[in-house]
Amino acid sequence: MNYAIIGTGAIGGFYGGKLAQAGREVHFLFHSEYEAAVAQGLRVDSVDGDFSIRPVRAYRDTHDMPACDVILVALKTTVNDRLPELLAPILRPGSLVVLIQNGLGIEADLADRLPAHVGVAGGMGFICSNRIGPAHIHHLDYGRLTVGLYRGDETKCRTFLDELADAGVETVWAPDLAEARWRKLVWNIPYNGLSVVLDTTTEALMAHPSSRALVRSLMIEVQHGAAACGITIPDTFIDEMLAMTDRMRPYKPSMRLDYDHRRPMEIEAIYSRPVREARTRGVELPRIETLERQLRFIEKKYLP
Amino acid sequence: MNYAIIGTGAIGGFYGGKLAQAGREVHFLFHSEYEAAVAQGLRVDSVDGDFSIRPVRAYRDTHDMPACDVILVALKTTVNDRLPELLAPILRPGSLVVLIQNGLGIEADLADRLPAHVGVAGGMGFICSNRIGPAHIHHLDYGRLTVGLYRGDETKCRTFLDELADAGVETVWAPDLAEARWRKLVWNIPYNGLSVVLDTTTEALMAHPSSRALVRSLMIEVQHGAAACGITIPDTFIDEMLAMTDRMRPYKPSMRLDYDHRRPMEIEAIYSRPVREARTRGVELPRIETLERQLRFIEKKYLP
Repeated sequence: MNYAIIGTGAIGGFYGGKLAQAGREVHFLFHSEYEAAVAQGLRVDSVDGDFSIRPVRAYRDTHDMPACDVILVALKTTVNDRLPELLAPILRPGSLVVLIQNGLGIEADLADRLPAHVGVAGGMGFICSNRIGPAHIHHLDYGRLTVGLYRGDETKCRTFLDELADAGVETVWAPDLAEARWRKLVWNIPYNGLSVVLDTTTEALMAHPSSRALVRSLMIEVQHGAAACGITIPDTFIDEMLAMTDRMRPYKPSMRLDYDHRRPMEIEAIYSRPVREARTRGVELPRIETLERQLRFIEKKYLP
Repeated sequence: MNYAIIGTGAIGGFYGGKLAQAGREVHFLFHSEYEAAVAQGLRVDSVDGDFSIRPVRAYRDTHDMPACDVILVALKTTVNDRLPELLAPILRPGSLVVLIQNGLGIEADLADRLPAHVGVAGGMGFICSNRIGPAHIHHLDYGRLTVGLYRGDETKCRTFLDELADAGVETVWAPDLAEARWRKLVWNIPYNGLSVVLDTTTEALMAHPSSRALVRSLMIEVQHGAAACGITIPDTFIDEMLAMTDRMRPYKPSMRLDYDHRRPMEIEAIYSRPVREARTRGVELPRIETLERQLRFIEKKYLP
């Protein structure tokens, strides 16, 4: 199988880099960092051992790339409208597109706009990884990738996971993608939004009783939203997420980094879509909706 | 009747100043501005005509003040714990204490801690007034005072309102104090909290669809909270509050001013108490509670 990495940043660069390092044929799409990638390769400083992919199969346009069996999309969901056009040149019958992105409903939206023979899966990375320079990534901790199939050939999807595991990445097969997506929201919804609205870190949110109570209330609303969609998230999972965050080093969630760099925030995929999915089934998520509206107001201030 | 003004700031200075200007005996409690008040009197620059009270009956300790018939309290609710001690020297049998303050349940809390012969009322000022210097107030617009009795002699309370009306202040008698307090919260809850959390003005909150929708949702929650307490606030009142705010000049609510000056915010009286009153009756106010918890987190950042 050959691979395409659409968006070679902290996430795409890490997983694609691991596959390439293990000898797989991996084609990387770069944007502004293309020249640096050609000149110095893709560098990954990792807690598990530093490595470089040099030369790297680098491109700045998907029209120059070959068709691929597995396409990992690691762009922000804020550009997903452009994905069908971007992916068209590298699709072949039976290609599998894996969205390593945040939020809900993104696989359904993309699948509706791709040819029926193209498979679509969702990937959720549990990883601390930053871009520290052009084509240069710092992998600080964790790395697990959870993948669930939305449509297409399960065997191909599992083969991809096997090859990733062979490359040294911890992988998890999610038999129910929607459940995995809702579980991920249990963490993403409170910490991403509150770190922006309250201009703070996960550590401070956990330290004050009022924000900690608010985090928990938001998690419980995610649980209610999931239940409206027929998905059971046990109470113990909420306790686990709180305990895990207590153990984490102070951390800026991805939405907070987007805000700090005045980039669009993934409000639609992480907040608006879950609120709508629950409302369609007669369940209101008022706390999440409050956060959604606050975030939209804040984004308007710097992206009018 | 003689009067005491406890807290001679933008609000207490205005209403007390109007009474004194009309020839009433008014005793003003000052704090740091006592010397300025003695030296230059109390100055009120008003859209209705500037005036000065000079000399002004100024004090810096209630132990030096005479007992009074009507005592207007215009301090922040954040110091209400100290009111019984502060008021003790100026109470006489039948004194009426009028709390010109924001929030819910403040009359009940104070009444429990005052002698039974002391009357307690609540006052809600609809006024744009700022303190612009020591013992110097700028009254920009409006001025209406709505007063409702919590306990005590209604005749005395109405006489106070008559004397205030004679002094040129628009007055409204509220037959149901709890209803008047909940109605005031319809405005106070969205605009105070959001102007702090979103670092903005009433004008910007009205201009963006997402914040405007959030303002309205919060108003509807106040309506639900009132309903839980047996008080009907009609939908038209919410529309009126939105329309009125559309017409207002850009305005910083009092909580935003407290935040800007790093003073304690009136979170307890404006947010926590309404949430508790509704919850006691089986009704959750999740959006208001979200705002409450965000405000407590923000306050902790500057008042640890």
